[in-house]
Amino acid sequence: MTLPISQSRLWDSLMEMATIGPGDQGGSRRLALTDEDRAGREAFIQWCQAAGCTINIDQVGNVFARRAGSDDSLPPVVMGSHLDTQPTGGRFDGVYGVLAGLEVLRSLNDHGITTRHPIEVAVWTNEEGSRFSPPMMGSGVVAGVFSLQEILDAKAQDGARLGDELERLGYAGTTSATDHPMAAYLEAHIEQGPVLEVEGVLLGVVSGAQGQRWFEVTVIGQEAHAGPTPMRLRRDALVAAARMVDRIHQLGHSIGGDACTTVGILDVLPHSRNVIPGKVWFTVDLRHPQDSVLAEMEAQFRAMVAEVAEQAGCSVSIAPFWDFPATPFAPSLVDYIEASAKKMGLSHRRIVSGAGHDAVYIARKVPTAMIFIPCIEGISHNEAEDITPQDAAHGAAVLYRTALAAANGEIA
Amino acid sequence: MTLPISQSRLWDSLMEMATIGPGDQGGSRRLALTDEDRAGREAFIQWCQAAGCTINIDQVGNVFARRAGSDDSLPPVVMGSHLDTQPTGGRFDGVYGVLAGLEVLRSLNDHGITTRHPIEVAVWTNEEGSRFSPPMMGSGVVAGVFSLQEILDAKAQDGARLGDELERLGYAGTTSATDHPMAAYLEAHIEQGPVLEVEGVLLGVVSGAQGQRWFEVTVIGQEAHAGPTPMRLRRDALVAAARMVDRIHQLGHSIGGDACTTVGILDVLPHSRNVIPGKVWFTVDLRHPQDSVLAEMEAQFRAMVAEVAEQAGCSVSIAPFWDFPATPFAPSLVDYIEASAKKMGLSHRRIVSGAGHDAVYIARKVPTAMIFIPCIEGISHNEAEDITPQDAAHGAAVLYRTALAAANGEIA
Repeated sequence: MTLPISQSRLWDSLMEMATIGPGDQGGSRRLALTDEDRAGREAFIQWCQAAGCTINIDQVGNVFARRAGSDDSLPPVVMGSHLDTQPTGGRFDGVYGVLAGLEVLRSLNDHGITTRHPIEVAVWTNEEGSRFSPPMMGSGVVAGVFSLQEILDAKAQDGARLGDELERLGYAGTTSATDHPMAAYLEAHIEQGPVLEVEGVLLGVVSGAQGQRWFEVTVIGQEAHAGPTPMRLRRDALVAAARMVDRIHQLGHSIGGDACTTVGILDVLPHSRNVIPGKVWFTVDLRHPQDSVLAEMEAQFRAMVAEVAEQAGCSVSIAPFWDFPATPFAPSLVDYIEASAKKMGLSHRRIVSGAGHDAVYIARKVPTAMIFIPCIEGISHNEAEDITPQDAAHGAAVLYRTALAAANGEIA
Repeated sequence: MTLPISQSRLWDSLMEMATIGPGDQGGSRRLALTDEDRAGREAFIQWCQAAGCTINIDQVGNVFARRAGSDDSLPPVVMGSHLDTQPTGGRFDGVYGVLAGLEVLRSLNDHGITTRHPIEVAVWTNEEGSRFSPPMMGSGVVAGVFSLQEILDAKAQDGARLGDELERLGYAGTTSATDHPMAAYLEAHIEQGPVLEVEGVLLGVVSGAQGQRWFEVTVIGQEAHAGPTPMRLRRDALVAAARMVDRIHQLGHSIGGDACTTVGILDVLPHSRNVIPGKVWFTVDLRHPQDSVLAEMEAQFRAMVAEVAEQAGCSVSIAPFWDFPATPFAPSLVDYIEASAKKMGLSHRRIVSGAGHDAVYIARKVPTAMIFIPCIEGISHNEAEDITPQDAAHGAAVLYRTALAAANGEIA
């Protein structure tokens, strides 16, 4: 198969970016709005300028590299992702989507194609949320999830104010962050999960992002000495919580499909070998791509927890902690990506994004889709994160076809 | 019912001892071999001397108040317990057994009785194990569980050496700690559990102490992102551990009787809301009064853990942490206590001691038994620990009858 993009040029760019802010274990460390992040942005900007792009920086430091269209008054088709990383991050999370976008622009140049709409590659500020919390700040301001001012005033763990860091690094732009025109948004990304690799599929056609509902559960029993307290007189908060953990897991299985249910933290009090636990606190993370199913999952979870607590003689309270609505992507874009993969002979499957991405916020404003490529053993947020040059090229090729069609107004 | 002892005198002594090293919340704070512990010992010694006793202190600081017998060459019948407390301890744990013993001596004086064997009241050094670890040091040296030298060299959390503290306080005695003659040992104690109160029973006839086997279990699964990892591809260490916790609890119920099974500590790694736990570590405490049943419980526990881990796609390891053999008490003494309670018209039941006591070590060398009285809501190791004067008097009356019979050679 002849690809419309250059696998080696894309790979070389990925490897060169990885030399900026290298990690100790072969990964990357470019925390948002540090000197390393600036160096990464500057390499990207130089490459884009060399490819004939103009650069715009908005008020929250998002970078847009623009390739003019034949009708440059039309809103651009935007590709992109982020260049910041976790403290011990990988070389591909985010970076791949940015440099696959650059590779699309370079390939359009190679082929001498002028699109009707302009095409842009976006670098969103602070996707990871490691240095400044919460994550996905740049795309969140663009989508209206956060106000510009609250994000400029955000404080890093090291005490720095985000707005001051933008000034210091030269990324306090003047373009409006809340009024950036976009005809469509496309983001290529590593899967960050094991599904494509396990199934031997080359390309993930992302149909949308999981809705998420997070809770905190507190189980109260009766703290008592493990020796003199017979089994029949116990109200053991850990036994009750353990049954809930198992039932929460069963709930995910019984709903099936893309349903995910996870207990990630569980703390036991008083935390002594020979004391029956009197209190257990744990977190619950429920996910599904349809809000209606998610609501049903929450209802089943609540009923089950109450039932298990009562059987164990314990009391229980459930506090909502955070939630995120299910985000379906634009069907016409998703269909086009699927058709492109098929036409190119790439094995593919529909997949739901379980993790957060800039695309999930941008989808609230603009027709959006994502393309996933396999990552080895599903490992991400880890310096060992890895992909193959071939898989990277396949994703960039589908991105090329989709962006080109969108920029020529060929996707309804 | 006319009791052979004085309820008011016993209660007054308990309340007076509680004024020495008072806690902030109405309990007591007399940590082993502190100035407060010395003050408690000195009050006890003065009361015993006023009752005509001679005082001996052994090499590990155990105090023996001796009332002569008509044949003073016979080994004494010893009653006792401890005067040291937890940092936020109650007024009765240990103290009750010591002062019930004193009340027996005072009552023998009242009745003008001379027993054939001498009778002693023992105060054992550092039963609680709070300031110096492990617990039950004084009785442990007497029983040969610990060497005298290792205990004298023990270091407190505050850095003090136990032998030096004995010197400082004037309790480095010269009587041999390992060669103290005893015809029998009797210890009255609060139950420290809820059974007697829940069943409305006045007296616990303690048939022995639980054997204990403690373990540490490590479950290894696969740490992964809670979003992009489908349920079918997970190896969730917490789900596996939760099933084990439930099954360990079921094991205690299915063995029945006095079997106790407890998971008191459970730690989850990496301890993040949206990461599937890759590792869980937890403690297991199995107890039963018969070693053969305890061995069967351990075998069932091990088989269950291996089965659950395999079903969950996890690996598991079990490390023994500590064990303590089951300790049956002397049948003749236990029967006599039971018969006495019956003769006095006190409701009673056989009960197994789930907690450690000095009697459990002394039982390794000398015919031993214990008498439990109810404690309110089973609360102990807590300043709120409480009993009633009537319950205290009932226990002391049974102790009186049993000690008198034993000291006259009337118990086989």
